[in-house]
Amino acid sequence: MKNTLSLFTSIFLKTHQNFNIFNGMKKVLLFGAGRSATALIEYLTALVRKGGVALTIVDAASTSNATQENITYLQADIFKEQERQKLIEASDIVLSLLPPALHLLPAQDCVRYGKHFITASYNNPEIQALDKEAKNAGIVLLMECGLDPGIDHMSALKELDDIRQQGGDIRVFKSYTGGLVAPESDNNPWHYKITWNPRNVVLAGQGVAHYLEDNQQKYIPYHRLFSTTELLEVHGHGFFEGYANRDSLKYQTTYNLTEIDTFLRGTLRRPGFCASWNLLVQLGLTDDSFRLQRSDEMTWKEFTTSFINLSKDEKINHRLAKLIHKGPGAQEIRNLKWLGLLDEQKTMIPDATPAQLLQARLEQKWAMQPGDKDMIVMQHRIEYLSGEGKRRRRIASMVQKGIANGATAMAQTVGLPLGIATRLLLEDKVKITGVQIPATAAWYVPLLEELVQHGIKFQTSDTIMKE
Amino acid sequence: MKNTLSLFTSIFLKTHQNFNIFNGMKKVLLFGAGRSATALIEYLTALVRKGGVALTIVDAASTSNATQENITYLQADIFKEQERQKLIEASDIVLSLLPPALHLLPAQDCVRYGKHFITASYNNPEIQALDKEAKNAGIVLLMECGLDPGIDHMSALKELDDIRQQGGDIRVFKSYTGGLVAPESDNNPWHYKITWNPRNVVLAGQGVAHYLEDNQQKYIPYHRLFSTTELLEVHGHGFFEGYANRDSLKYQTTYNLTEIDTFLRGTLRRPGFCASWNLLVQLGLTDDSFRLQRSDEMTWKEFTTSFINLSKDEKINHRLAKLIHKGPGAQEIRNLKWLGLLDEQKTMIPDATPAQLLQARLEQKWAMQPGDKDMIVMQHRIEYLSGEGKRRRRIASMVQKGIANGATAMAQTVGLPLGIATRLLLEDKVKITGVQIPATAAWYVPLLEELVQHGIKFQTSDTIMKE
Repeated sequence: MKNTLSLFTSIFLKTHQNFNIFNGMKKVLLFGAGRSATALIEYLTALVRKGGVALTIVDAASTSNATQENITYLQADIFKEQERQKLIEASDIVLSLLPPALHLLPAQDCVRYGKHFITASYNNPEIQALDKEAKNAGIVLLMECGLDPGIDHMSALKELDDIRQQGGDIRVFKSYTGGLVAPESDNNPWHYKITWNPRNVVLAGQGVAHYLEDNQQKYIPYHRLFSTTELLEVHGHGFFEGYANRDSLKYQTTYNLTEIDTFLRGTLRRPGFCASWNLLVQLGLTDDSFRLQRSDEMTWKEFTTSFINLSKDEKINHRLAKLIHKGPGAQEIRNLKWLGLLDEQKTMIPDATPAQLLQARLEQKWAMQPGDKDMIVMQHRIEYLSGEGKRRRRIASMVQKGIANGATAMAQTVGLPLGIATRLLLEDKVKITGVQIPATAAWYVPLLEELVQHGIKFQTSDTIMKE
Repeated sequence: MKNTLSLFTSIFLKTHQNFNIFNGMKKVLLFGAGRSATALIEYLTALVRKGGVALTIVDAASTSNATQENITYLQADIFKEQERQKLIEASDIVLSLLPPALHLLPAQDCVRYGKHFITASYNNPEIQALDKEAKNAGIVLLMECGLDPGIDHMSALKELDDIRQQGGDIRVFKSYTGGLVAPESDNNPWHYKITWNPRNVVLAGQGVAHYLEDNQQKYIPYHRLFSTTELLEVHGHGFFEGYANRDSLKYQTTYNLTEIDTFLRGTLRRPGFCASWNLLVQLGLTDDSFRLQRSDEMTWKEFTTSFINLSKDEKINHRLAKLIHKGPGAQEIRNLKWLGLLDEQKTMIPDATPAQLLQARLEQKWAMQPGDKDMIVMQHRIEYLSGEGKRRRRIASMVQKGIANGATAMAQTVGLPLGIATRLLLEDKVKITGVQIPATAAWYVPLLEELVQHGIKFQTSDTIMKE
């Protein structure tokens, strides 16, 4: 990362001169202006236009010199302490869309200079350790204020609050999120394209999935994760399948659901995806723990067959079928072939792990094309005993699509909560300090209200369950 | 380890006085006198009795004060440099049966003081780095001189040499070893008892198994390892099943078999073991990567069922059967029950990983009883094209049983090679220096010859293969 961030340029000096103009204005500083920042920058730009706010955007790769009034683009090296601290000292609110590992430095500076800090990334022990100092400095370090984590917390807690206020006793909580391709751009048999970090797509679910079901701790090993799925419907959008996240129980206490029977957080895919992905897992293609010998000289077919023993004259698809206890014409095998994993040309990728080779195939075959739209799907499934003693199920679902050649659904659902939280702090609407996630009503009520205005909204149903 | 090794006692001083007596004698120093040392100590004692040799045995837990002429028992802390070095300086040959991680310190001292060093453990980069210094000092650091590694190398190379001398072109090399229970002591449905390190029994095979088959690199993931087995017969001892070791190809160069089609080293169990163990693997019970919440309060049944989702009214054995695609009465499920993994009492083991809980069950259920005998089985399976152009198969098998209430087969097969190598060095029979394994004829020819005298011998067959 460090190498990709260039040195301060003369623009830095120009900006510093500009700080004088900003006197009396609130100053917002954003680190990171990649693809996921589009919706956030649009939101912040609108804030600037309303007046009283100046925005500085710092990015490693930024080449934009487009100057709008009170908006400054900078290239900077965030590892250069003095430069970073000068920028932060001159700001009121600092937003970070940097890779998660890089939040700590600006967060520490924010504590030092008494500036608010907001990010969409997971909270972690290093950030949490700054809690007391942040409180003393009278500032908030707001973590997990994006989609997942972010909107998942906010929207779940809104439903939970509502049920509790009606005297409901919550017994089952399941919450699923998926970053998918919109149906109008879905033209492959996996019904999936890469709309976020491709490495995370390949390694998703590795480790053990831990959740609570019928009052029993459950631990599902990775090799069974993609055959342990739940089918669910999102009204008007068809069916999806969900599998459990590795860390399902992380938010049980945050949601005040420690006395619940079932608690699960998971990931959504279109039906059939998990069964086909399971074939790749059963083969061993997602393993990132070792490097294949002479991987560049292997064909894709040799790569795939290096994970199976073919007895004499046995056909590959018959052998693959055995792995998943299906017939040789199974869709799972056709999907494997569709990815080019039985192609006869060489991988040309030296010294690679299986996961790295697979990722190369996926990035090619599952690439978003110009004009393609992504789609975010989130669904909470809550079962509770109502005051009248009926068992009821509440389902809250959100579907958000990207804009063709514009802000993706991912950029919208990550960026808008960040932007709204910035506005709330600029307007002094939230007074909580210390390390926070938007899991308190002071944050999520106004955040969800404004998200609705931007079209990000949940459809809710609440029905008595059959005996 | 360090804490279990006590300080030098007054015995040390007594011994130092004794060194004067030893003048003119060859001095052998043995670190470690645990259960696996019995046969080695017996062998070395016989050497002492023949005269001209004095033996000092250093062990952390030794309480034996039994003094025989020219044999001294010591308790010592091998981390105390000065004490350790004094002992090594006063010796001619140093043997180590310490845990593998502890060999480096005495090996370094041996280089420094110009003493030979012998162990049954795997060679490693730290030891290998001492090669040049060892050569300069005119001493040998002999590694892998036990059973596996040790006898496996020696006996395989003897067969390979023989075939090559007859002009044979070796195409297939497979070599399996197993530490098992002797049939006369086999009274459980797993046909297995713990005759070596129980933690290694539980974790065996974790990671990916890498071998060469039909000229293709093969990588078998752990979750398929125990369903990827080969059935083989050892004449007079019935059938066994073998699965591939993690590091099968490690010795391909050592054995000069880089142009071979198939190269595999593996582990032996009795038929049926792997299928039953596979059920435990499929469940996730061998996972050592995370700790279970409140594991002490779980019953064994809750432990096992925390790895599966039981649908309403589904019976456990029906759910287990699905995992392995068998019927609910399958032997695999009966074997799981036999281990007490569906028992209703609490585990009482806090903060444990699945592997640790499973190990506790195995140590109880698979314990060797007084009078039980263990059994070592080794088989090499070599296919080659003879000078006459025939495809031939040579099978070399060794079966060694322990002595009831005496030296185990493991102690014999690990200890005797160490003892014989000591004798060869005492008698100046081998002149090779540097870091060695007994993979050269100078070592393995005399070693194997003397092993036969101790009853450790191979039965060999060599037949033309059917077309």
